[in-house]
Amino acid sequence: MSSMLRSIHIVGNIARRAFRPIYGTRLMSAYVDPLSGQPAELPDIQHGRLIIDKNEQPTPPPPSETLVFGRTFTDHMLTIEWSATNGWEAPHIKPYGPLNLAPSSSVLHYAQTLFEGMKAYRTDDDRIQLFRPDMNMKRMNNSARRIALPTFNGDSLLELIKKLIRMDRHWVPKEPGHSLYIRPTLIASQQAIQVSPPTEAILFVICSPVGPYFPKPVSLYATTEYIRAAPGGTGAFKLGVNYAPAVMPQKMVAEKGYSQNLWLHGPEHYLTEVGTMNMFVVLKKDDGDLEIVTPPLDGMILPGITRDSVLQLLRDHISGTRPIRGLDKGEKLAVSERGITMKEVKDASQTGKLVELFGAGTAAIISPVHKIGYLNEDIEIPTGPDGMGRIARAVRKELSDIQWGKISHPWSVPVDE
Amino acid sequence: MSSMLRSIHIVGNIARRAFRPIYGTRLMSAYVDPLSGQPAELPDIQHGRLIIDKNEQPTPPPPSETLVFGRTFTDHMLTIEWSATNGWEAPHIKPYGPLNLAPSSSVLHYAQTLFEGMKAYRTDDDRIQLFRPDMNMKRMNNSARRIALPTFNGDSLLELIKKLIRMDRHWVPKEPGHSLYIRPTLIASQQAIQVSPPTEAILFVICSPVGPYFPKPVSLYATTEYIRAAPGGTGAFKLGVNYAPAVMPQKMVAEKGYSQNLWLHGPEHYLTEVGTMNMFVVLKKDDGDLEIVTPPLDGMILPGITRDSVLQLLRDHISGTRPIRGLDKGEKLAVSERGITMKEVKDASQTGKLVELFGAGTAAIISPVHKIGYLNEDIEIPTGPDGMGRIARAVRKELSDIQWGKISHPWSVPVDE
Repeated sequence: MSSMLRSIHIVGNIARRAFRPIYGTRLMSAYVDPLSGQPAELPDIQHGRLIIDKNEQPTPPPPSETLVFGRTFTDHMLTIEWSATNGWEAPHIKPYGPLNLAPSSSVLHYAQTLFEGMKAYRTDDDRIQLFRPDMNMKRMNNSARRIALPTFNGDSLLELIKKLIRMDRHWVPKEPGHSLYIRPTLIASQQAIQVSPPTEAILFVICSPVGPYFPKPVSLYATTEYIRAAPGGTGAFKLGVNYAPAVMPQKMVAEKGYSQNLWLHGPEHYLTEVGTMNMFVVLKKDDGDLEIVTPPLDGMILPGITRDSVLQLLRDHISGTRPIRGLDKGEKLAVSERGITMKEVKDASQTGKLVELFGAGTAAIISPVHKIGYLNEDIEIPTGPDGMGRIARAVRKELSDIQWGKISHPWSVPVDE
Repeated sequence: MSSMLRSIHIVGNIARRAFRPIYGTRLMSAYVDPLSGQPAELPDIQHGRLIIDKNEQPTPPPPSETLVFGRTFTDHMLTIEWSATNGWEAPHIKPYGPLNLAPSSSVLHYAQTLFEGMKAYRTDDDRIQLFRPDMNMKRMNNSARRIALPTFNGDSLLELIKKLIRMDRHWVPKEPGHSLYIRPTLIASQQAIQVSPPTEAILFVICSPVGPYFPKPVSLYATTEYIRAAPGGTGAFKLGVNYAPAVMPQKMVAEKGYSQNLWLHGPEHYLTEVGTMNMFVVLKKDDGDLEIVTPPLDGMILPGITRDSVLQLLRDHISGTRPIRGLDKGEKLAVSERGITMKEVKDASQTGKLVELFGAGTAAIISPVHKIGYLNEDIEIPTGPDGMGRIARAVRKELSDIQWGKISHPWSVPVDE
């Protein structure tokens, strides 16, 4: 790695902007020492201390049509080391390259890792913007608390992420529906195979240009043999440990010809999540009004930022504060965060009251569902001629128009200075 | 890393011993491709292909009295790389040193890691031996299957582990109760942040000299807020994902003044495991006989090798096949693998029928318990004058005498050629 350190200089303008207010953020978390659980007097992340080693051998971004999700990375990465003795060290932007990890690093044994997924979008007039990044910073700190990794000042990390994106600005694709996927990750790096709060950690951020997700309807298989989460577990946090156990069940449903798992809970088969997305079910009530249902944040559900945004857009539409284009203002809609069982979904399907079902997440935005395999039969779900239901289509357009800056919204946060 | 490659030679004597029978093992698992789930035609691990790069700058082992668990590692490590295109590559013993992992390596994001814990023991007449290593090889393959990592020929890996121990033979401590802890680990190393069966993986083995665990009785706190495992989850497999979520609950009970978590299940508060050990409860029945209870392997319990060994020793004692020294042959004992609730433990304590409670695992062998905090009160558990109950003491002595070769047993497997 040391051969990659070619030019080092401190970026003064970052330091001067240290306390500039950012939309929707605040001092999101004082650094808490994971060993003592107490607010620490050691340094928090300070973006003013940024050190930059420019990549002197940048590679040209590949043609956007060749992109496969999460395989191509930009010229630079951000790393910030932490130790129980020194707190957060100076942030470091350097050429994308391998991490030198001792084989005893505790992340490799005990899965002490958490991450975030966020995107930078290029607007038609060539600005770069993020979507509600304060939510990612807040959730990342919540994840850290759950597995005793160190917390940090989210405002400072966000400033550093913006700087990283600006340095690799030409990697944000121009094509419609494309974006730059940003992956902040925090791992325990202490060289000791002891199950304990880490004494060393590394926060790193890597960026990958990604193509569009076409809203092609997917099929789900409601999994009764395996679970994603349980009460008292970690389902509500964005931790690596929620993902490895899902790979084999996902392979099993793929072999049955379905796209993704529908994760259930309990003997009542409550719906929880879809693959790696939150989920929404649209039901027609007896009076003909629509009810849009999503499972509540009961400790098993990931508090998705797309989930929260869909809920807010729908509630603003219903209250008349901000109508969603494409939805009739006169139509009666209700939004419910409540438990919903497979029996209710199946009954609704049989009585013609199952209107739509879709997943919501950063990668696909909205992913309509056309079929659920459940206990050896298929529940068919209506989709429109373009593969999407009416609610899914309107919400998807509203969200993506905000994300790509076609309409302005306070959720959009500029990356450019 | 490349500067560490100093001398490379193929070890011929390993190849010649390829099909020598080993006690208690067989072809434990043909290599299964995690992508297709089918037996693969690509190479399995072949110990005959071993490449050795000797560490030309070995360090002297530190004084045994200074050892802290899992912080000091021997001069060499074993690595074996796997890819979906090439199968298992040639095994490689080389100087202990860092792994170069891309920041996109999927283990760092999705916790695709599993491990084993085993020990090498030095006997009084200076032989080195392992304890039931075939069980570790089998369990490691089971863990791999659960998270779609590649399986492998356990016999071959065991031969390589023996070779590694022989190369670092002087690192196996001589002092009583000391041993060399061996940590085989398998991680997904593909450079793609995609949740899927890995296309690349690394199996590595590192070794750490460790001191004795004194059988000091520990206190437990029965945790009702957090879980270790749930039905349909991964509790029965030795995966990293079972450990990270336990660190914060462990910190919480430490703050209450207890040593470890007692993990419960369900509204009935079934006992499952103790910290990172299996557990045994000794009860006095109404007729005065003793019942030794351990939770059954119901999919939530790690199938511990020490657990299995304790059960077998007790059953052989009861049947008269092989009496345990220190236990009265005439005494009526029964062994039960059955569910046991906190209510049963508490009731037994109140009626004087709770005789002993202990954890069982590779690290501590047998760890007696003197107290369980539960719903804001303490259940006191009898222990003998040396801190151990009568059953715990006898079983611990029997097991450790087998492990350190003071008595011979087919469970002991020689490392020396």
